Amino acid sequence: MASVFSKIIKGELPSYKVAESDDFFAFLDINPIQEGHTLVVPKVEQDYLFDLGDIELQAFMVFSKKVALAIEKSITCSRIGVTVIGLEVPHAHIHLIPINGINDMSFNTPKLKLSADRMKELQNLIAANFE
Amino acid sequence: MASVFSKIIKGELPSYKVAESDDFFAFLDINPIQEGHTLVVPKVEQDYLFDLGDIELQAFMVFSKKVALAIEKSITCSRIGVTVIGLEVPHAHIHLIPINGINDMSFNTPKLKLSADRMKELQNLIAANFE
Repeated sequence: MASVFSKIIKGELPSYKVAESDDFFAFLDINPIQEGHTLVVPKVEQDYLFDLGDIELQAFMVFSKKVALAIEKSITCSRIGVTVIGLEVPHAHIHLIPINGINDMSFNTPKLKLSADRMKELQNLIAANFE
Repeated sequence: MASVFSKIIKGELPSYKVAESDDFFAFLDINPIQEGHTLVVPKVEQDYLFDLGDIELQAFMVFSKKVALAIEKSITCSRIGVTVIGLEVPHAHIHLIPINGINDMSFNTPKLKLSADRMKELQNLIAANFE
């Protein structure tokens, strides 16, 4: 069965897409830890990050870096934190999270509730800064 | 001033080294979240992950993947989680953490207190599995 991320990539489920290439897709996390919290996924449905071949892993990181730089230009923050847990959805995904302090990346704190309007604004900002 | 990680790489500070290449160095985190929690750093002192050039970032990830696979062979776990926060030490470092559940990667829980003997055991296990 297609993962929820594959459905998002195909447009069968809606998303706040911020960037896309032939091989990768980036969109806002709908349960963000911080404003601008973005997920980056390979279009190929691979469960585990470290099962990706070296070439795919390299390309995944370079694409993620470009997305991270776009988020940094869009959101006031010290830098972009990175995390890959991968136990929730069986489709490798990198969390990119704008942070100012170490606790800004905790997954144990309540998620933000952002309006659809604010999500759309963040999407447009990041998408415009993606090169 | 040299970062604490540069001192570790040069051997001016002790560490439980598990892997090394010309460009990268991996050692056990002395304040581990889980047994086998490892830090991977580039030998070049670069503060922010996404300031690394594409080539360096790619090589960093491929080396980290090799370390992750060695940890997986050494520690009973579902997979290796990845996180890069980078606000503690101004020298880019990837945390590789063996996890079984999403909460196994929380930096807000008390760190493990492992004996030097246990750390040495974990070091030897992971180093032996590094190819």
